[in-house]
Amino acid sequence: MQFNAPGEEMYGLATRYFPICRSITGNGVRESLALLQKELGSAITLNIHEVPSGSHCFDWIVPDEWNIKDAYIADEAGNKVVDFQKNNLHVVYYSEPVNLELSLEELQPHLFSLPNMPTAIPYITSFYKRFWGFCLSQEQRDALKPGRYKVVIDSTLEPGSLTYADILLPGKSKKEIVVSTYVCHPSMGNNETSGPVLVTYLAKWIASLADREHSFRFIFVPETIGAIVYLSKNLEEMKRNVVAGLQASCVGDNRAYSYLPSRLGNTVADKAAQHVLKHHAPDFVRYTFLKRGSDERQYCSPGVNLPFCSILRTRYGDYPEYHTSLDDLNLISADGLGGAWNVYARCLLLLDKNKRYRTTTPCEPQLGRRGLYQSLGTTDPHLRERALANILAYADGDHDVIDIAEICGVDALELLPLIDLLLHHNLLEAV
Amino acid sequence: MQFNAPGEEMYGLATRYFPICRSITGNGVRESLALLQKELGSAITLNIHEVPSGSHCFDWIVPDEWNIKDAYIADEAGNKVVDFQKNNLHVVYYSEPVNLELSLEELQPHLFSLPNMPTAIPYITSFYKRFWGFCLSQEQRDALKPGRYKVVIDSTLEPGSLTYADILLPGKSKKEIVVSTYVCHPSMGNNETSGPVLVTYLAKWIASLADREHSFRFIFVPETIGAIVYLSKNLEEMKRNVVAGLQASCVGDNRAYSYLPSRLGNTVADKAAQHVLKHHAPDFVRYTFLKRGSDERQYCSPGVNLPFCSILRTRYGDYPEYHTSLDDLNLISADGLGGAWNVYARCLLLLDKNKRYRTTTPCEPQLGRRGLYQSLGTTDPHLRERALANILAYADGDHDVIDIAEICGVDALELLPLIDLLLHHNLLEAV
Amino acid sequence: MQFNAPGEEMYGLATRYFPICRSITGNGVRESLALLQKELGSAITLNIHEVPSGSHCFDWIVPDEWNIKDAYIADEAGNKVVDFQKNNLHVVYYSEPVNLELSLEELQPHLFSLPNMPTAIPYITSFYKRFWGFCLSQEQRDALKPGRYKVVIDSTLEPGSLTYADILLPGKSKKEIVVSTYVCHPSMGNNETSGPVLVTYLAKWIASLADREHSFRFIFVPETIGAIVYLSKNLEEMKRNVVAGLQASCVGDNRAYSYLPSRLGNTVADKAAQHVLKHHAPDFVRYTFLKRGSDERQYCSPGVNLPFCSILRTRYGDYPEYHTSLDDLNLISADGLGGAWNVYARCLLLLDKNKRYRTTTPCEPQLGRRGLYQSLGTTDPHLRERALANILAYADGDHDVIDIAEICGVDALELLPLIDLLLHHNLLEAV
Repeated sequence: MQFNAPGEEMYGLATRYFPICRSITGNGVRESLALLQKELGSAITLNIHEVPSGSHCFDWIVPDEWNIKDAYIADEAGNKVVDFQKNNLHVVYYSEPVNLELSLEELQPHLFSLPNMPTAIPYITSFYKRFWGFCLSQEQRDALKPGRYKVVIDSTLEPGSLTYADILLPGKSKKEIVVSTYVCHPSMGNNETSGPVLVTYLAKWIASLADREHSFRFIFVPETIGAIVYLSKNLEEMKRNVVAGLQASCVGDNRAYSYLPSRLGNTVADKAAQHVLKHHAPDFVRYTFLKRGSDERQYCSPGVNLPFCSILRTRYGDYPEYHTSLDDLNLISADGLGGAWNVYARCLLLLDKNKRYRTTTPCEPQLGRRGLYQSLGTTDPHLRERALANILAYADGDHDVIDIAEICGVDALELLPLIDLLLHHNLLEAV
Repeated sequence: MQFNAPGEEMYGLATRYFPICRSITGNGVRESLALLQKELGSAITLNIHEVPSGSHCFDWIVPDEWNIKDAYIADEAGNKVVDFQKNNLHVVYYSEPVNLELSLEELQPHLFSLPNMPTAIPYITSFYKRFWGFCLSQEQRDALKPGRYKVVIDSTLEPGSLTYADILLPGKSKKEIVVSTYVCHPSMGNNETSGPVLVTYLAKWIASLADREHSFRFIFVPETIGAIVYLSKNLEEMKRNVVAGLQASCVGDNRAYSYLPSRLGNTVADKAAQHVLKHHAPDFVRYTFLKRGSDERQYCSPGVNLPFCSILRTRYGDYPEYHTSLDDLNLISADGLGGAWNVYARCLLLLDKNKRYRTTTPCEPQLGRRGLYQSLGTTDPHLRERALANILAYADGDHDVIDIAEICGVDALELLPLIDLLLHHNLLEAV
Repeated sequence: MQFNAPGEEMYGLATRYFPICRSITGNGVRESLALLQKELGSAITLNIHEVPSGSHCFDWIVPDEWNIKDAYIADEAGNKVVDFQKNNLHVVYYSEPVNLELSLEELQPHLFSLPNMPTAIPYITSFYKRFWGFCLSQEQRDALKPGRYKVVIDSTLEPGSLTYADILLPGKSKKEIVVSTYVCHPSMGNNETSGPVLVTYLAKWIASLADREHSFRFIFVPETIGAIVYLSKNLEEMKRNVVAGLQASCVGDNRAYSYLPSRLGNTVADKAAQHVLKHHAPDFVRYTFLKRGSDERQYCSPGVNLPFCSILRTRYGDYPEYHTSLDDLNLISADGLGGAWNVYARCLLLLDKNKRYRTTTPCEPQLGRRGLYQSLGTTDPHLRERALANILAYADGDHDVIDIAEICGVDALELLPLIDLLLHHNLLEAV
């Protein structure tokens, strides 16, 4: 199996996805999903779902839909000193519409900036409490002079719907492997764009594999509320079918590989993620579940308890540009996205093929008469012969492929062709 | 919950308890228990039990009752060179009555001293074999001149009864938390007085708590034979009800905190003790069960197997003054007793509240609309919000409060008010 | 229990066993087994079994029987430059008969030597593919001059049978402890002779023990094919009865003690082997099952899964003389064999006595009135009293003797007489 990461193609999609103004509801999400559908091509269907505002989903209520056309702060001379058209982070997300004239003093409680990062615009939201505000760099804020300001937010916040999407790729079994990501932040690179871009390209690759053992589900939801909505619609089916899931977030920069376990850290998703990272990014960072922050919070909650873990490049909250305008297209790269694809693709393939096998005969089989063992007895068998013998030694119906690879200290993906060889000779059978 | 250790009051009781001449039977035990009842006050009943000599209790037989009025060794001039009136350790405990005249040579096999601790009087017993003897300092012994000596032990050793006591404080549940200590040594500070003093003040404190989840049992027995007698009377009930027990011994000095596990080290008592010690006395000494020496020997024996461990200050056998006259009121202190109270009280409270909880909704609940989460989305939630989320993440019906605290790396007692808050909002329910 | 290793006697047997020309079938095996039967004496029966060539045993087919009278390479002058009569390693084992004249160039593909060990003759086999060849030292090979050579191998390779043997020593129980070794290599010391010599002397010693709790089985088979044949005849019975097995191989040199675990490393055989080695050869080498190479491959295969591990001196493959003529009688010694006997004998005795016990009374029994505890209460009980108390504390029906010894940090063999003492006093009962 060759793994050729489509780094450049992914980065190209990222440049088109990044500029869209998204939030947890609204047309930005719809526009983003349309872009992904176009990239997927007509052979793969991105199913779009709309859930009306006010819908009760578990403990939550779908909020009103938010859309925005424009927003600015203008000084007395009519100069737009803060302008949403220049950077869509300039508005507090979910700001209610306003059209006011205020003094600088009255304006201040509605302004957000980062004193320690004077050029960065922070990303601020107020999804569940009506509010309005602007985000700006500390340099911009310091330049504001006392005086009167005109404040305009041309937004709508009214009943509509929340939009999410999924891709379902059937396999030989109804048992599913899932990748979930979020589509809800405006222009951010690592902490938004990288996720949907990676998952889109993983879906294209999985769709190209002829002999999928498992079905695959790729989920694109607004973070938190979207995952909760999704689970409220699909929990029973997912509990029945999902064998492993990966939460994709912050998968675009090139500074680190990171692993964030499931709640108890003991699922097959955890096992596969750690195995692949150990062999392909051995310096990866290990977090505990206490460091969770994305939709693994929902997938792993006690009442859901699906086998999800997370593989990241540099984790949300652990890089200074996080949730600011500095998390932009310069922060992510073809190499960063490609590295994530390499690890995710290996994980998905390994999870797909990770069966338990049993030998078909007591004792070791006679490999020699099948041409699988040298005829001359010398001091030590060859490496491939050792590997075949080790697979047969641990194919006891209890150990899966990853377990056997861990015992042998080798990459599980290297065992797959040897297992196929033993299956071909009827020396193994799947449990 | 405030923990105000009554160190001075405990030390005051210690000064009154210390001088009494106790053994495993006899009036000294009765006098000691009467003193404790007085300290407990009329609202708390110390139930006194008498078991006749000759009673069969499991493999043991209750011995004759021993009482002593006087004992001395006088030289030819009539000088009392060893005098029980000066220190009640001067006699071998359970010595039969004697009134003899002997040469020094004939006397020597009946004398006990410690060559390496020349000023200390050792504590020696012969509970189950008729014998008589005197204990004296090596300095006293070296000063004895050849000659004739008059030896008097004015004791009685005849059928009577063994005395023990317990306090039962009912709670919401019949399930019990137990603290056991011994009342059988004569004047020793850390290895006798500290235990009953601590347990008396723990019982007073527990009795003052309005909403006890569990019932509490406080046991005062002569060591070994008393614990065996107690278990022979109460084993079935205790097997049914006891969820955790602590053996209190050597809890009065101020040199160390120590933990001695249950036989397998895996009970909830062990879990609570280690958790509290880790947070309140992180340098505590860890023993194995091989170092046991008090009534955990009975409570943890295979045929009893109650979930008992032991928390000590400096362990019996591990301080030079142990079982000598140097283990006196100077060895223990208000700080020593108070420190033990601090750890025991936290343990008992934690064991009382240590339930398993389950969330009432799949996924995370919407804390924001209950005022439990900030409305503005910024980079990182507050500490309390993290703690609430962590409780909800691990409230899966499997993890108890201590487990959750261990996962989160916090003191479990700090989680209790947050759990109450979540219960109040109907976001948790006890399993 | 005294352990007097019969080192010199074993080495004496080794000198008689070593010269015989053995292979996986043929008269050499029969001659070897006859020698062992003679050493065992008439009171112990070595059961000889013959299995016809062509028999199907699991996945394998018993090969034709091979016997050899002579083999040499002669130069044009008639000098035998390679002569089987001088060293029976000079022929490739299972060589078909040949009588040819060849040039040196034509001969070369049939010659085997070791460039890095110029004086050593390698040991080479071709059991399952018809072939002929000679093994010689690199020095011999380098001395061969161009020219014509006469090549004679006076062997037979035709239907016959495969020979193996076992000794069955009944005990109180049908449950069995097994030792297996191989009888199939020609003249090699550590990697052949040591095994059957050790197992013969272990069988003699076990036969001399009056009160065996278990039955014992000692297996002598050609490696691989013989073990597979043996299991194909005895698998169901062995699955029913075998509680522990040891594979004896490379047990004659004096350079190391080694432990090679069972497939999962968690059988009672593993537990006993590690315990004994820890106490009697604490510097022993630990291998993983990946380093297996003898009949543990069959005994531990998933479809067989018997509780076998291996104790070795210096492991096959880990010493330079392995599978060469330098693995001779100088490599092994009375001390080497005796050391192996010491460890194996202790293991077998421990496995035989390794029961689970339960106390007969709740709480500690009163040892004092049985004379098992000192009557005077002083600061610390004696060592033996501690050991008795520890046995009673962990005799809970779950821990076996080795478990208790591991908890107490003592040699389990030292606990056996104390357990007998407690059984004698009816304070313990076997589970």
